[in-house]
Amino acid sequence: MKLFSYYRSSAAWRVRIALAYKGIPHGTVPVHLTRDGGQQHSESYREMNPQGLVPALADDDRVFSQSLAIIEYLEETHPDPPLLPPDFAGRAVVRAMALGIACDIHPLQNLRVLNYLRGPLGQGDGPVADWVRHWIGQGFRPLEELARRHGDGMHHLYGDGVTLADCCLVPQMYNARRNYLDLTPFPALVAIDAHLTTLPAFSTTRPEAQADAE
Amino acid sequence: MKLFSYYRSSAAWRVRIALAYKGIPHGTVPVHLTRDGGQQHSESYREMNPQGLVPALADDDRVFSQSLAIIEYLEETHPDPPLLPPDFAGRAVVRAMALGIACDIHPLQNLRVLNYLRGPLGQGDGPVADWVRHWIGQGFRPLEELARRHGDGMHHLYGDGVTLADCCLVPQMYNARRNYLDLTPFPALVAIDAHLTTLPAFSTTRPEAQADAE
Repeated sequence: MKLFSYYRSSAAWRVRIALAYKGIPHGTVPVHLTRDGGQQHSESYREMNPQGLVPALADDDRVFSQSLAIIEYLEETHPDPPLLPPDFAGRAVVRAMALGIACDIHPLQNLRVLNYLRGPLGQGDGPVADWVRHWIGQGFRPLEELARRHGDGMHHLYGDGVTLADCCLVPQMYNARRNYLDLTPFPALVAIDAHLTTLPAFSTTRPEAQADAE
Repeated sequence: MKLFSYYRSSAAWRVRIALAYKGIPHGTVPVHLTRDGGQQHSESYREMNPQGLVPALADDDRVFSQSLAIIEYLEETHPDPPLLPPDFAGRAVVRAMALGIACDIHPLQNLRVLNYLRGPLGQGDGPVADWVRHWIGQGFRPLEELARRHGDGMHHLYGDGVTLADCCLVPQMYNARRNYLDLTPFPALVAIDAHLTTLPAFSTTRPEAQADAE
């Protein structure tokens, strides 16, 4: 397998965590999201991944896109160790937590959206930073509540093991800190993030540990 | 089962399609997204679904949120007829198409985001409409390409049957038309949408056919 990744992409980091947690051997191809006008927009990259975003995962001659679809693929092809609980209801809760980050937070604060706010909408740094913090906070509030309901609020978002939801949480927390979000209203998320980042699958895959880190 | 729905919510419509396609008996509880300051923000609704969005699905004493997590739950609990292909690679492609709508388009044009653009960012109707059309177009371009690669470009987004991706497409096309997006660059999506809307699972679940339609 070959992962097309950018060191600071939250979505790519989710997949790096899943690959590391499952111990799946793979190579990594860096795709620089700002250099050359964004290498993800190049003809050759779009030919492979029409969505023009990172990450993408090549497995033999197939290429897959969208971080959550890739992680579900890894879960199906390499079920052990699992990233989803065995029961239907538990799987639905874990997926809802992951989507609460992947749909409700991340798309609102990725690079292309901030570029649109700055460009066509003419917004300055202050309003753009407020926008980012607003949407992360909006998504973290229910996640904090769900973490308390479905986990111990200290180690994992759900149950007593690492799940797909945790793969999404740690990159989003990193991003929240980069954007100076006040995390005091989210003690469970802070504690869970602190625990998870002690695990090799999370620490070895962090942006600063990537070959393409700047 | 009981679906908490709003007639015009794209995300709720996705789940209505999946329930109808699988023939799962259920009741529907309307949640009005603008009346009373948004009934999804009420204390009782948030207690049930902390994410405060529609849809939510109650099954016995459990409540599930996030449309794609709910549809995966329906797929696992009611596998026949399936909404995902049997092979791992096909499942990954269908999920990536669905996420290309659910993550890359829909979150950028739902009500709460447009309210923020109009309120705190002070944008008028023109720039807000341009924003909506821009992000739908950005998401439809790769979807058109993927539809040609993975289907016949005329009946379904993937393969020769209805999938999770189709459940996401039809509500998004409806939304694109409501926002006057020029659909001529997307002939495959237009043809697939036209075919799908002849199927009862799609036509009986459309916004205008809902009890809470206005």
